[in-house]
Amino acid sequence: MSLANNILDAMKTVLPQGGGFLPLHEPVFPGNELAYTKECIETTFVSSVGKFVDRFEEMLADYTGAKRAVAVTNGTAALHMALMLGGVKAGDEVIIPGLTFVATANAVAYTGAIPHIVDSEETTLGIDADKLDAHLSTLAEIRDSECFNKETGRRISALVPMHVFGIPSDIDGLLAVCEKYSIPMVEDAAEAIGSFYKGKHCGRFGKVASLSFNGNKTITTGGGGAILTDDEELGALCKYLTTTAKVPHKWEYFHDMVGYNYRMPNINAALGCAQMEKLDEILLSKRKLAEKYVEAFANVEGVRFLKDPEQCSSNYWFCTIILEKGFEAERDSILEATNGAAYMTRPLWTAMHRLPMYENCPKSDMNVAESLEKRVINIPSGAGIIGV
Amino acid sequence: MSLANNILDAMKTVLPQGGGFLPLHEPVFPGNELAYTKECIETTFVSSVGKFVDRFEEMLADYTGAKRAVAVTNGTAALHMALMLGGVKAGDEVIIPGLTFVATANAVAYTGAIPHIVDSEETTLGIDADKLDAHLSTLAEIRDSECFNKETGRRISALVPMHVFGIPSDIDGLLAVCEKYSIPMVEDAAEAIGSFYKGKHCGRFGKVASLSFNGNKTITTGGGGAILTDDEELGALCKYLTTTAKVPHKWEYFHDMVGYNYRMPNINAALGCAQMEKLDEILLSKRKLAEKYVEAFANVEGVRFLKDPEQCSSNYWFCTIILEKGFEAERDSILEATNGAAYMTRPLWTAMHRLPMYENCPKSDMNVAESLEKRVINIPSGAGIIGV
Repeated sequence: MSLANNILDAMKTVLPQGGGFLPLHEPVFPGNELAYTKECIETTFVSSVGKFVDRFEEMLADYTGAKRAVAVTNGTAALHMALMLGGVKAGDEVIIPGLTFVATANAVAYTGAIPHIVDSEETTLGIDADKLDAHLSTLAEIRDSECFNKETGRRISALVPMHVFGIPSDIDGLLAVCEKYSIPMVEDAAEAIGSFYKGKHCGRFGKVASLSFNGNKTITTGGGGAILTDDEELGALCKYLTTTAKVPHKWEYFHDMVGYNYRMPNINAALGCAQMEKLDEILLSKRKLAEKYVEAFANVEGVRFLKDPEQCSSNYWFCTIILEKGFEAERDSILEATNGAAYMTRPLWTAMHRLPMYENCPKSDMNVAESLEKRVINIPSGAGIIGV
Repeated sequence: MSLANNILDAMKTVLPQGGGFLPLHEPVFPGNELAYTKECIETTFVSSVGKFVDRFEEMLADYTGAKRAVAVTNGTAALHMALMLGGVKAGDEVIIPGLTFVATANAVAYTGAIPHIVDSEETTLGIDADKLDAHLSTLAEIRDSECFNKETGRRISALVPMHVFGIPSDIDGLLAVCEKYSIPMVEDAAEAIGSFYKGKHCGRFGKVASLSFNGNKTITTGGGGAILTDDEELGALCKYLTTTAKVPHKWEYFHDMVGYNYRMPNINAALGCAQMEKLDEILLSKRKLAEKYVEAFANVEGVRFLKDPEQCSSNYWFCTIILEKGFEAERDSILEATNGAAYMTRPLWTAMHRLPMYENCPKSDMNVAESLEKRVINIPSGAGIIGV
């Protein structure tokens, strides 16, 4: 038996068969999604004003424990705004993992800053804190409580952990690096709604963080994202900047800063409210699926199912298997066999330092990221598989 | 009788009374809005993939006559993308009218270019082509078929007419200026879906244009916008750049340019398709309302109702009255009286050259804009007033 066949057999013990192509992550709408959407249309409040935006922001703040959540058009806009609020300026460098969706690097580029790409760790797929420390020890210089890259002369103004597939990164290790080198943390928690690190929601560890509610995420608003912060002033500024920076007045249109039209429409927030009401059930269903996968892959040689790190609770956004070293050459045949059997599977993103627009960015050695690129496979993960 | 009372009396002959506060422009959902939205939720296609996005883009292209329409998150994103596709680069200057919503200037700022703010004309509220010609004649220099500002040394890489309240700007006059000074036109048609200049839809005259479907627009998608172009290559590039610039592949995630997450979600496009089906009826209803206003204001001394220019068909997005010179001091009492009588009215936006972040931008004299700021008032304009 080939590894591809063994993996497919394991998946068959967990997944439905004969139901057509099973996507990697189909949303589920088990609650008030239609009712709330209908309410928007019937009251004509579909757009930038409406109660669901406020309610969705409150639900996000309550759930994550953040003092303020601001809903925006998508996770990319959220990270762009989070970086700006975090203090990133044009000409800075921002540390990001090589293993992330391209939006992380693009959001840095929108600010005019340059991504500084660093390696990941095998256990969480997030930034390797020890390796980052070693990397910075050779090139970082602290002046007036700010970190500079001695080689490029640029200020390093943020470290952006990305919680890959909802698995919390090594927050304690990364916070220690941030403190040692005077670098503020801005979390890209796009994939991490419902993920907790030592009991605290991802996105609560840095100055400001972003979430995403794209269609393939744990919960969806069609397209959407949010900024989280515990700094109420920063939260108010965030709301102001994402809604065109208009000075409140009964009729005048006066704006005093370059603002953005990043607001989430009420009809999308309506979906979000309904989804938040079901988030715990969705997470439970996804966790049950992950547990079934753990069992199914326990005895498959050459591959392991990626579990939560200790003291962490992943949302298991994308369930993930990792081929052991030596099995890299099997990856494409596994992708062929599983997709061919109507189970959608997908490899990791191409690492950021290998994309043409970012290939000349400063970086650490990328050995682990390059190895993981050849060994990581996502498998079907939606809450609809087991049901809500 | 004061002018405020006369205006209020004229409005009362047109508008319903006693029905609560009448907004400036409430959307109407007379067709398949709920049915299509429901279909999105029931099929789970609420997000970036789905038939309504394609269909909405086709409907927009068919209606406007453009070769390609690309749906995006909102009008600001659409103009940002249109400027980039139009060739605007960081450090350039872009000519915009002082009388516009701040998004026009902000979109220029996002590209790293500098707004060059010019004056408007009384008839269309759009850029005054003759005045622009005179202004450019003193400062423009053409080198290698590109226009430069002799005073700043910067390239002037686009002229952005904005069709104010849906009234087509003086396109022929502006195109002549574009040709004379070798400046490409990029149209901000955010307010102009359903507006035609000499039989051709606004947004079809430059290299590329933007539309908006914000909640207060003639038709709405909650939040949304679109890019129009007759250049199919540019249209394909637009779709690529607004959807993260991902190279098509069965499973690899490889991106070869700094892309954007500007895609319109399917659930918003579903609203858009239903609204497009009713666009003609909505326009007809708004035109009837405008005709009633024409009659109502015909004999009110000191004010005129702003009609379509000759050979043009405005969508009458926002119905507009203009106080005659000498009546500027009445503006605020008119706003107080009408809003106090539960008819929402609004003055013009503060002109761009008077906003702190743009006050140091290059500009022409702004006499007309500054006069209009004190004399223009928008009055209730929604299709729901007469009905669809």
